[in-house]
Amino acid sequence: MLPKEGNNVMQKEIYLTGITTTGTPHIGNYVGAIGPGVQASKDKSKDNFYFLADLHALAKAGDPERITRSTLEIAAAWLALGLDIDNAYFYRQSDIHEISELTWILTSMTSKGLMNRAHSYKAQVQNNIESNAKDQDKGINMALYSYPILMAADILMFKSTHVPVGRDQKQHIEMTRDIAQRFNHNYGDILVIPEAVISEETATLSGLDGRKMSKSYDNVIPLFVDEKKLKKLIMKVKTNSLEPGEKKDKDDSILFDIFQAFSSKEETKNIEKLYEQGIAWGEMKKILFECINDQLKPAREKYQILINNPKEIENELISGAKRAREISIPYMEQIRSAVGIRKLC
Amino acid sequence: MLPKEGNNVMQKEIYLTGITTTGTPHIGNYVGAIGPGVQASKDKSKDNFYFLADLHALAKAGDPERITRSTLEIAAAWLALGLDIDNAYFYRQSDIHEISELTWILTSMTSKGLMNRAHSYKAQVQNNIESNAKDQDKGINMALYSYPILMAADILMFKSTHVPVGRDQKQHIEMTRDIAQRFNHNYGDILVIPEAVISEETATLSGLDGRKMSKSYDNVIPLFVDEKKLKKLIMKVKTNSLEPGEKKDKDDSILFDIFQAFSSKEETKNIEKLYEQGIAWGEMKKILFECINDQLKPAREKYQILINNPKEIENELISGAKRAREISIPYMEQIRSAVGIRKLC
Repeated sequence: MLPKEGNNVMQKEIYLTGITTTGTPHIGNYVGAIGPGVQASKDKSKDNFYFLADLHALAKAGDPERITRSTLEIAAAWLALGLDIDNAYFYRQSDIHEISELTWILTSMTSKGLMNRAHSYKAQVQNNIESNAKDQDKGINMALYSYPILMAADILMFKSTHVPVGRDQKQHIEMTRDIAQRFNHNYGDILVIPEAVISEETATLSGLDGRKMSKSYDNVIPLFVDEKKLKKLIMKVKTNSLEPGEKKDKDDSILFDIFQAFSSKEETKNIEKLYEQGIAWGEMKKILFECINDQLKPAREKYQILINNPKEIENELISGAKRAREISIPYMEQIRSAVGIRKLC
Repeated sequence: MLPKEGNNVMQKEIYLTGITTTGTPHIGNYVGAIGPGVQASKDKSKDNFYFLADLHALAKAGDPERITRSTLEIAAAWLALGLDIDNAYFYRQSDIHEISELTWILTSMTSKGLMNRAHSYKAQVQNNIESNAKDQDKGINMALYSYPILMAADILMFKSTHVPVGRDQKQHIEMTRDIAQRFNHNYGDILVIPEAVISEETATLSGLDGRKMSKSYDNVIPLFVDEKKLKKLIMKVKTNSLEPGEKKDKDDSILFDIFQAFSSKEETKNIEKLYEQGIAWGEMKKILFECINDQLKPAREKYQILINNPKEIENELISGAKRAREISIPYMEQIRSAVGIRKLC
C-alpha cells in the first residue's frame, strides 16, 4: 500500500498466510511456518490473516477423511502453540463463501496464457513429455491448473499487502498482481496489489534421511508425537560412522541442522564446540531430544487437550470466520457491484 | 433419475434453463426460449428452474452496466410474459452462493483434457492458428476456457434431470455428466446425472437480413419495442423484388419464417394461400406486424410497468433465490461433507 497522499499516515500492513490441510504438522512446518507465524500473530502493528486452505487441499487430495483430520490437527497445532486469535484472523478458507465467488470473478479477468506459464503446471507437462505421454495434459486436473486464481482470491479478498512465501511461490504472487491489475484497469481501483515477502532464511529442515523434511519422503518427525515416539524418531536420524572422540563436521550433520533450527545462536555455538571435541552421536541425539522436547512439551499438552475437544476448535474457527467475513462480505458487495452483479435498485 | 426401487414411484423430473444476461431480449429469444419456457413453467408435473446467468455473462462482457441492464430486462420480459413463479424457480445465478463453491469443488474433479476438447475452446484456438498468432491461446480468458465447469455446477446444484439445450450445447451436458460421474465415483452417489433434451425443432428465427436473428449480426427485432418502432423494423425486413400479383415462394421469405413462428398451423396455411395468390410484400408486412403486435401487446404493457419498477423485480429475484437456496444450502452441506470440508464435530 502506498502512503496516503497529503499526510504521513501509512495504511496498516496486512499479512496473509495459507496452510494447506493435507497432512499432519511436523517439526519442519513448525520451524518454517508455524513458529514464525505464531510469533507474528502477536504483532499489533500489522493485521495478520491465517487460514486453513481446505479448498486448495481438494486439488491435492481426494481423501475426505484426511482433509478433515488435517484441518483439525493443523488448527489444534497453531492454537496450542499460542496463535494470538484476538489480534490475528484465523479461519477456514471454505467458511468464507465470498472467496469462491471472487474466484470466478477473477477467472473472468485471467488470461489462459498466464496459467500456461505457471511453473507447477509446466513441470507436469514436462513430466508427461518426458514419459512420452500421448496427451501432454495427462493426469492434470483443472484445480491443479487454475489454483493460482483461487490463491489470488485468497489474497485479494482481504486486501493483503504482504504475502510471505518461499521463493518457489513467488510466481503466484506475480500472477495475483497481474490479475488484480487487469481487474482494476477494467473496473476501477478496487483491488489492493500485494507484494511477495520472500524469506531468504526460511529454514527448510532436514528430515530423518537428510533430504528436506517432507511427508512425501516419509522422513518427518511429527510435531506432537509423544515423548517416547519423539525419542525413537530422533534416534533414527541418519549419521555417519565416526566414533566417539573423532571430530565431527557440523556441516555434514542432520542432527546439527535440526538442533540449530530449535536453538539460539549461543546454544548452537556450544554444540559446535562439542562437535570439535568429538561428541558421540548417541549423546548428540539425547541432547537434541531434550532440546526439542523441552520446547514442545507445554504446547503438546495443550494440543492433546484441543485435539480431544474438536468442538472448541470448531468454535474458534467459526468465530474467526465471522470476524473475517465482517471484512469480506461488504468488500464482496463492492466488487460484485463493480462488475455489474448488483441489486436492481 | 431412475425409478425408485421396490415401487413404481418416479422421481419428479427437474428441468433447468439458464439465460445469459448480456443483451436485450429479442423476438428470436421469445420464439426459441422464453415462450416455450414460460409455457413449461406452468407444468405442475415437473420442477422447472430458470436462472439469470450473470456469472456466465462476466465471461462474455466486460461491461458492468450492460450486465445489470440486461438482468433487469430479461427478468422483466420473463415475468411480463407470465412465467409462473409460484410453480417454477426463478433466480439470479449469483444470488445462489453455493454455485460458486460447487464450481471449485467440481474443478477439482475435472481433467484438463476434458476442457481442451470443448468445441468452443477449440474453435478459438483454430482461429488463432489460422491467423498465425504466436500463442494459440491468444485472447482466450480462463472463464471462456472453464465455463463448462460453472455450467456443470448450475445443473448439478439443483439435481437437474433434464436440460433443454440446442444441439451446439450438447457437449456441455456430456461434460457435466463426466464430471458428476467422476465425483460420484470418488465420493459416493451424491450428484444426479442429467440428460440433455435436444429440441430438434427449436425455432431459430431469421433476422431482418435473413441470417439467424442475433445481436452480433445487428439484425434483431427487440421483444418489447413500442408499436411504432416495431412497425418500422418489420418494414425493414428484406424481401425480394417480386411485384404484387406475382406468386411468392414461402421457402424464400423471411417474412413467412417469422410469421410461422408466431402463428398456428392454420393461420400459416392461410398465409401460404396468400403467397400463392401473389400477396404484395407491403401487405404481408402489415399482416406480420398485426400478428406480432397482437401477441405482444398485453405483455409489453406489463413489461413497461415492471421495467420502471426495478424494486418489484428485485423482490421477485430475492424471493426466488430464497426458495432455491432452501434446496442448495442443505445439498451443499452434504456435498461439502462428502469431500471432507465439514465441521469438526
